[in-house]
Order: sequence, then structure tokens, then C-alpha cells
Amino acid sequence: MYIAVIGGHNCSPEIAKIAEEVGEEIGRKGATLVCGGLGGVMEAVAKGAKQAGGTTIGILPGNTKSSANPYINIPIVTGLGYARNSLVVKNADAVIAIDGKEGTLSEIAFALQMNKPIIGIQTWDIDGIIKAKDARDAMNKLAEVKSGRRH
Amino acid sequence: MYIAVIGGHNCSPEIAKIAEEVGEEIGRKGATLVCGGLGGVMEAVAKGAKQAGGTTIGILPGNTKSSANPYINIPIVTGLGYARNSLVVKNADAVIAIDGKEGTLSEIAFALQMNKPIIGIQTWDIDGIIKAKDARDAMNKLAEVKSGRRH
Amino acid sequence: MYIAVIGGHNCSPEIAKIAEEVGEEIGRKGATLVCGGLGGVMEAVAKGAKQAGGTTIGILPGNTKSSANPYINIPIVTGLGYARNSLVVKNADAVIAIDGKEGTLSEIAFALQMNKPIIGIQTWDIDGIIKAKDARDAMNKLAEVKSGRRH
Amino acid sequence: MYIAVIGGHNCSPEIAKIAEEVGEEIGRKGATLVCGGLGGVMEAVAKGAKQAGGTTIGILPGNTKSSANPYINIPIVTGLGYARNSLVVKNADAVIAIDGKEGTLSEIAFALQMNKPIIGIQTWDIDGIIKAKDARDAMNKLAEVKSGRRH
Repeated sequence: MYIAVIGGHNCSPEIAKIAEEVGEEIGRKGATLVCGGLGGVMEAVAKGAKQAGGTTIGILPGNTKSSANPYINIPIVTGLGYARNSLVVKNADAVIAIDGKEGTLSEIAFALQMNKPIIGIQTWDIDGIIKAKDARDAMNKLAEVKSGRRH
Repeated sequence: MYIAVIGGHNCSPEIAKIAEEVGEEIGRKGATLVCGGLGGVMEAVAKGAKQAGGTTIGILPGNTKSSANPYINIPIVTGLGYARNSLVVKNADAVIAIDGKEGTLSEIAFALQMNKPIIGIQTWDIDGIIKAKDARDAMNKLAEVKSGRRH
Repeated sequence: MYIAVIGGHNCSPEIAKIAEEVGEEIGRKGATLVCGGLGGVMEAVAKGAKQAGGTTIGILPGNTKSSANPYINIPIVTGLGYARNSLVVKNADAVIAIDGKEGTLSEIAFALQMNKPIIGIQTWDIDGIIKAKDARDAMNKLAEVKSGRRH
Repeated sequence: MYIAVIGGHNCSPEIAKIAEEVGEEIGRKGATLVCGGLGGVMEAVAKGAKQAGGTTIGILPGNTKSSANPYINIPIVTGLGYARNSLVVKNADAVIAIDGKEGTLSEIAFALQMNKPIIGIQTWDIDGIIKAKDARDAMNKLAEVKSGRRH
């Protein structure tokens, strides 16, 4: 199972802490993390996932693998710029949005358009996002969606 | 000047009327319309623009030019699926959003991310969109933005 | 009918002359030229097509319309880098290759893969390319292919 | 180090055997295999690499991970169709071409355009490809290129 975590390349320490906890939950669960591979939320979540033994995929906008943050096991360069945002979501079985600006909003929109389950923590307030208060809550709600107990 | 008009491939007759009027304004102004090339808002706006003598570019998600609506002068196929949404916006000097669902939301997000002026008529309520009540109002507000009288 | 002309962004004056003549033939025929929008063969062919009254589309690798050569009526930016090469070919009903290096070779390969008729003037020697000696010969051979008299 | 192996989705048993041996060499060396993720050469090389303990990345043209062959550890969907060919090459530090038709030719062209070292076994005869007679020879020549002993 691939879980995409989306969020900005800049974030506050509080948001980074939440992202790292989400990454730990993903790694512990044995799921694979997909993210945009850069800094901020992407780095914090990859750090958490890697430390918990998970595989971390970073789908990068540019052409150089070295632009990935140090917690990415599998960097994938695309050279697609903003168009890579749709690839991050496309590769996910479920999406967790944390904080984020316009780039994150485009990924939320793609997740909704592709009918992927999407959980949100302190992010854009868009119909169709299932709100969660923290990492644990996000994973519980994701499990409920996946089991069909929540729509 | 390229103006992108974004909106859903299904829309009500009221929305289609507004889109057609926006197209007429664009054509009359001598601007080039860029849109997603399919039905609904995309078709109505292309109809208006073409009837007013404008050039209409349709950037299509698929691989066949014949999927373009009949008012598209210049169909461009991409085979990129949802990822083509970023190309519609990327080609525009300004964006007008009319109605629309998640696909339109992704284009709004890209417009904001790329710092393009974006006017909205009965569409998503997202910070950074300049609201307009109809076609004429949209064009006036666009002119104000372009002249630097509005930010 | 869209005809793509592919070739390098640098070329000799002799090749530029051939490319310009190919452009003139395309414009005179009332076909639309599709090319990569930059210099060299792309510029020479667009010059010829535009002077003969044709429409010229330039599908650009980058994000700025101003990178198009001055003979492009319809610049389309993609931000896709090398991946835009497949779009140039995808938009064509037929392809004419003139000279060119590896970028041109990738486009020849896509044309063959997509089963598009491809005529070559002083270009890569690849099975499936129909060789022509000049602009007039290329257009004649293209007409034969289109009419089914040549495979 | 990422090594891309490119080749057709159909191949003879002899070619499949060579591809599998190339995969084994890559896996044994501790390099990561990048390929197009489908059948034929892509499946044989992934089989060899996986059996030798290597990581196998499949960059797929479509939208469904399940279209990957069973030896792919990390499927990446792109929805880009033929345009994904440039991503396979872009992600590689070196490329090995085995047999193959037009799709492979487009990837060879991208490898040359991006200045990546490219070794060929029974494939297209294009200037710039370093010819190898089998898997072992390919890996030796790749090592020579990487060490600067061969250009």
C-alpha cells in the first residue's frame, strides 16, 4: 500500500512534528510513503517513515536526484515541474494532506478528482476531505475508509 | 494575450450562458482563448470566442484531436490525462474560472501557485481569486489587474 | 491537417534553406505547421510556412512563450523538457524530419511508434523513414502516402 | 546507482535470457534497476535483478500499478503514455539497451541527448552506443565508462 503525504516545502516546527509522526505511523504499518521528495512536510514525513523502517519514495519536480531530502530511499526525477503534482497523487492508494499552500491544494484537487480517500490535518477546508486532529487519528480514519466503515 | 477559461465539462444552461458571454468578450478584445477543449464550460466559452472572431486553443487530455469541441480552432493533444491541467494554466497570461469541480480546483491551485491573475465567477471560494459577477465584470477586473490598479 | 517538421536547433545555411522551402510548401498547401518552436530547422520551417500564409504552432520545452522563434503564431509552453518531444509528434498527422541530432532521433522514434507517416530529408537512416531529396519531393511523397499510393 | 535497462515488451527466449543475466549482474552489484515495468525485456531483466536481491523500479506508461510485471518492487505509474520513456532514461545514471523496437529507439535517443553512458546488446546501431556482446561484457564496459577509462 502506497500512502501519499502532501504538504508545503516550508512548515512550522509544530507541523513538522505532526508530519514526522504521520511518517512513523506509515512506516510502522509497513506501508510505502510517497511524497514530493523536497523539504518541509515532505522531509519531516520521510524522516518519520524511514526511522520506522518504511520505504520512502520522492517524486521530484526537477531532474536531479540529489535534490531529494536525505530521508528518501527511492528518488524519482520527473523534470515535469508542477505537473509532477498529479503523479504524487496518482501513485497513492490514499492521501494525507498536512498544512500546505497552493501546490498542496492542487494535489488535494487531484486526489478528489481521482476518487482517492483523503485525510486532512490542519490543511485546506475543501469538501470531501476527512478531517483528522493528529497522526494517530489520521491513520484510524484511513483504516475506517479502507475497511468501508467510513465514506 | 492568452486568457485561459477553466470550468467543468458539465454545466447548467445558466453557467453555459455566462461562459459564452465570457468567450465573446475575449474574442472581441482580440485575445486568444486557451481552454481544456472539451464540453460544458469549455465548449460554451469557445463558442462565444469563436463567434466573436477569436482564436480558440483547446489543450486536450487525450490523444485525439477529434475529441475537441467544434469551436476549437487549434486543438493540441497531450496524452497527459489530468497532468494536462497544469498546461492549460501555464499557457495563460490570466485565468477566468467559471463554476467547476475538482479539475477546476486543481487549475485554480496552479494559477495561484504560478502567480497568474485569476478571476472567479460562481466558482470555488479560495483566497486569491478575484470574484466577478458576470462576463463584463470579469473583463473589467482583469483589465484593472493587468493595469496594476488591482492586486 | 497538422504536419510536424522536426530537426535540430542548430543547422547549416543549406539545411535552413531546405527547411524554409518545406515550410513554404506546407503554408501554400493550407496545412498547419507543428514544430518545437525554437531555432535552427524549427525557425527556418516556421519562417517559410508563415511567409506562405500558414499557421505555425510551436510546442516549447520550457515555460516562456517568448522563447519561441519570431515566426510562431501559436506558442504552446509545456514545461516538460525533453518529454515535450512526444507531444510534437503526437499532434501531427504526418512528420517531416530534416537533418537533426538525438532530439530529432527521439521524435523519429515516436513517429514510427505512433504509426505516423514520416518523410526524411538528409536525416537519420532508420527503417520506416521515406527518403526525400528536397521540399517538393517530400510533399509529393507525403501526398502519395496519404492517398494510399505509398506505404 | 540507478541503471536503466531498455528493450521491447516482446522478445525472443534468447533475448530474455540475456536480459535476465543483465538483471542478475545489476542486482549482484547492488545497483537499482530502472525499467519500463512491463513484459518482454523489462520483465526478464527485473526477474534477474530481483532474484539477485536488487531493487527494481518500473516506470509505467499507464495509471495502474497492477500492470507492472511481478518482479517490480517499486511500480511508479505516470499516465504519460509514450512520454514516460524520457522518465525511464532521466532516472538512470547509465543505460543498457537490449534488442527493442521504436520505443527503445526513443529511449536510446534520450540517453544520448542527456549524455548518459549507453551500452547496447543486439540493439539499434546508432553512433554513441557502446556495443557489448553479453551481460558480463556490458557490465565491464559500463564500469570502464564510469571509471573514465572509456568514453
